[in-house]
Amino acid sequence: MTSTRRGLLIVNTGDGKGKSSSAFGVMLRAVARDWRVAVIQFIKSDKWRTGEKDMAVKLGVDWVVGGDGFTWESEDMEATIVAARDAWDRARGMILSGDYDLIILDEATYPVTFSWIAVDEVLEVLRSRPSHVNVVITGRDADPAIVDLADTVTEMRKVKHAFDEGIQARRGLDY
Amino acid sequence: MTSTRRGLLIVNTGDGKGKSSSAFGVMLRAVARDWRVAVIQFIKSDKWRTGEKDMAVKLGVDWVVGGDGFTWESEDMEATIVAARDAWDRARGMILSGDYDLIILDEATYPVTFSWIAVDEVLEVLRSRPSHVNVVITGRDADPAIVDLADTVTEMRKVKHAFDEGIQARRGLDY
Repeated sequence: MTSTRRGLLIVNTGDGKGKSSSAFGVMLRAVARDWRVAVIQFIKSDKWRTGEKDMAVKLGVDWVVGGDGFTWESEDMEATIVAARDAWDRARGMILSGDYDLIILDEATYPVTFSWIAVDEVLEVLRSRPSHVNVVITGRDADPAIVDLADTVTEMRKVKHAFDEGIQARRGLDY
Repeated sequence: MTSTRRGLLIVNTGDGKGKSSSAFGVMLRAVARDWRVAVIQFIKSDKWRTGEKDMAVKLGVDWVVGGDGFTWESEDMEATIVAARDAWDRARGMILSGDYDLIILDEATYPVTFSWIAVDEVLEVLRSRPSHVNVVITGRDADPAIVDLADTVTEMRKVKHAFDEGIQARRGLDY
């Protein structure tokens, strides 16, 4: 029987909306409970996440901006890969430190999918984390080995999306 | 072509986690943009949502606790139905007032499924809302007519869930 005391590994994946938003909702709940919370943002862009980041920092969350822009915007792939690996190095240190009750690895599936970070390294860190540390991983195409290790996995499935109707991403709703 | 100015109707449905959490993540983003935000909570319970509510109120969100406990806990169905209808009456007033940029109808699908609130009445209010008002509806089994009207619909699909492994709901993560 699984212990009810250990921290959970939660994965939000799929092609639909809400993978990161849901993680930030969990973040809010954790802050309300006085948990120590950190977010590592693996995909950086100028506009995305700035609102969430400002609010999170105001609420006492430690927020690390890693990564180096959307990969399909990158002109210097080497720098992008180095940035992603650097974000992972920081995430690993924070996870293993035991200093946090909840760590959100936002959009961390992508560098794993692109093999910039070895999935075995991620699994090893997740398996050896201190028992109180809850981890949320978001992003499309979560690696099957991570899904296998996870306690709770939700696929956010797109039923329909305003973007498909020609509606642009909205400040305040989407970023 | 759809106007890019009107408020969106967003539905988070399905049997997986993250329907409400995602809405609260969107709430956080909207607050960061200085939007006027309200949450109407259609299912009330002693422990659920209290953390989110406290944080939301602290952030300036108007939060209405409607409903009357989980329906499968209800001993007085008549009171439960009256409470759900009362929550809807308040939601309708807030939606039509135009006083809010974002209104979250949390777990509002259930009273519609149980026919305590007529789906035609909900559709009518959503269709006649002021154009700047964004609405998020969460809950399982969203009515097909509401899905049809919505701009963005995500099905949160359970891939696996810690509860299935005998792990209880967790303070700080689940409530």
